[in-house]
Amino acid sequence: MTFDDLVKRTASWLDGSGDLSTLVISSRVRLARNLPFSKFAHLASEAEKEQIITCIVAANAKGVPLSYFDATVLDASQRALLVERHLISPALEKGTGPRGILVNEQEDLSVMVNEEDHLRIQVMQSGFQVDEAWTAARCAEADLARELSFAFSEKWGYLTACPSNTGTGMRASILIHLPGLVLTQEMEGVIRGVTQMGFVVRGLYGEGSDVSGNLFQVSNQITLGRTELEILEALDKVTRQLIQCEQNARDTLMGDIRSQIEDKVWWAFGILSHARLLSSQEFMNLSSAVRLGIGLELFDSIEVGTLNELMVRTKPYHLQNQVGRQLDSPERDRVRADMARRRMAELGNP
Amino acid sequence: MTFDDLVKRTASWLDGSGDLSTLVISSRVRLARNLPFSKFAHLASEAEKEQIITCIVAANAKGVPLSYFDATVLDASQRALLVERHLISPALEKGTGPRGILVNEQEDLSVMVNEEDHLRIQVMQSGFQVDEAWTAARCAEADLARELSFAFSEKWGYLTACPSNTGTGMRASILIHLPGLVLTQEMEGVIRGVTQMGFVVRGLYGEGSDVSGNLFQVSNQITLGRTELEILEALDKVTRQLIQCEQNARDTLMGDIRSQIEDKVWWAFGILSHARLLSSQEFMNLSSAVRLGIGLELFDSIEVGTLNELMVRTKPYHLQNQVGRQLDSPERDRVRADMARRRMAELGNP
Repeated sequence: MTFDDLVKRTASWLDGSGDLSTLVISSRVRLARNLPFSKFAHLASEAEKEQIITCIVAANAKGVPLSYFDATVLDASQRALLVERHLISPALEKGTGPRGILVNEQEDLSVMVNEEDHLRIQVMQSGFQVDEAWTAARCAEADLARELSFAFSEKWGYLTACPSNTGTGMRASILIHLPGLVLTQEMEGVIRGVTQMGFVVRGLYGEGSDVSGNLFQVSNQITLGRTELEILEALDKVTRQLIQCEQNARDTLMGDIRSQIEDKVWWAFGILSHARLLSSQEFMNLSSAVRLGIGLELFDSIEVGTLNELMVRTKPYHLQNQVGRQLDSPERDRVRADMARRRMAELGNP
Repeated sequence: MTFDDLVKRTASWLDGSGDLSTLVISSRVRLARNLPFSKFAHLASEAEKEQIITCIVAANAKGVPLSYFDATVLDASQRALLVERHLISPALEKGTGPRGILVNEQEDLSVMVNEEDHLRIQVMQSGFQVDEAWTAARCAEADLARELSFAFSEKWGYLTACPSNTGTGMRASILIHLPGLVLTQEMEGVIRGVTQMGFVVRGLYGEGSDVSGNLFQVSNQITLGRTELEILEALDKVTRQLIQCEQNARDTLMGDIRSQIEDKVWWAFGILSHARLLSSQEFMNLSSAVRLGIGLELFDSIEVGTLNELMVRTKPYHLQNQVGRQLDSPERDRVRADMARRRMAELGNP
């Protein structure tokens, strides 16, 4: 798979399938693993990092074949595009030295190599499918483990570069759309509650990213002292509670100010369908309202998959890749609006 | 013609025909006349006012037959609806005692009876057709003059209840759409210039009304010491200057910020086509942007006539008349949005 092949495809985790996918965009499980013979990536020499890559790519060649993209060969725009696709972290994007990513065609499975840890195995699935993501991540890990061994201590579990990942090395998360709780101004209280349950609430791009389009990433804080299944169970529980709270908020809104909510949804649809300029923030806000409208069953023909795909494809580096040149901000706003409008027009009467 | 017949019809001055009708909504000429045998309306007794009505209605019966609506028989909502149609003034609406209006089927000709003056003959035409309006007003006056004589002094001209109308008794005005000058923030200077030329700039509903939807009514200040033709020539001149200024402003905008302007137009069209709630102010602002878009030839199938008609039909008393009951403000916003949306949908792909 070439880089262009990758960009042309739409990751399967964006297709809007899976349980409760009008609320839960995606479920993700990632496992941090390290090779026992080498220093952690931040201490390893260039030569050692090259060797790590060689081992991992060789191991992969014998299992399910993933395509390897060498971050030092990709240019800055290509790396930024991979961040937009949630395939690599900003740390891998901006880092130095030998590093890269293995990824399959569906993009539901990827392995960052020489990011903070030697391996970061990541599975993303559409909708509320944390268990399925966990199963797939375990399979991928098992495939690699046939050829590789991982740094492990009977006392601490999997050893990782940062102690916050030690133990299971697992981070499980969901990306959830909570416009109801934002509108009823309950989100602050909800975040406090979720935090007390040992989870972290962040924006769309994880640590340090702003909340945009009422999308929240909820992931486990703790990796140590709990088994994977305990973590997954707790995430399942917290997600179901969030869904219930969001549903209650929506019921309240539809009871109290139904026509304003419907109006908000249709204004947003009207603008997405006709605007000639859309900033990234405008797109996220408008598509949040349309996504809410899908949840409220106000539309017949719009599906969350369309919005999910647009969410990634309207990001700056994706727009530039599509047009084939650098774009300044007003140009991006124009191309973004064109793309949204065309997709909405394809849906016909919603 | 019954009141219901009147409401069902759309006044011909809203049909978007006539010169420069994307800029000039309508042209209006009104003549203030009084019967010589009677006191001015504000001093006349009820009996005298009844007699005035009898004379005028009898005179009308012999000329072009207009329908007479007795303001004391109409209820408050019906009178308010006639204000929305620009057929009667707030003074006639809210006044007391015998008074009413004569109006023809096309609504291009009407005569208020016992408003400030005994007769206020009004002709309204679509587009920039002040001369045609003047000709039609003279004909109507001549028809009435076959049966009636009007208070006239060789020295002062036509005598009127308020000295500001004495002389020609004529007020000529245009209703013009100047979004370009508003956007380029030149409107204040333009109003100063127009005022210096002896014209008054007001909102959509004349004296004391707010400017709404970038629509300005420009009318002559002076009725005395100038002939009708001088007034009409001056209005023609000031209107052509306004059109030129507006055109320059639009050229500047389309040169400097073309994509923002197009975006503004399409956002507005998108919202008008999809919103579920529209306040009156929102409707006026959005339809102003769409009207600008028509002027800029961004649409194929939308015509100003549609917007003109909606401008009147989305007013509160018209909405209530259509639904057949009183509506509170949120209900009106819903019915207004439904109406705008249906009309936009009828246009298909703009």
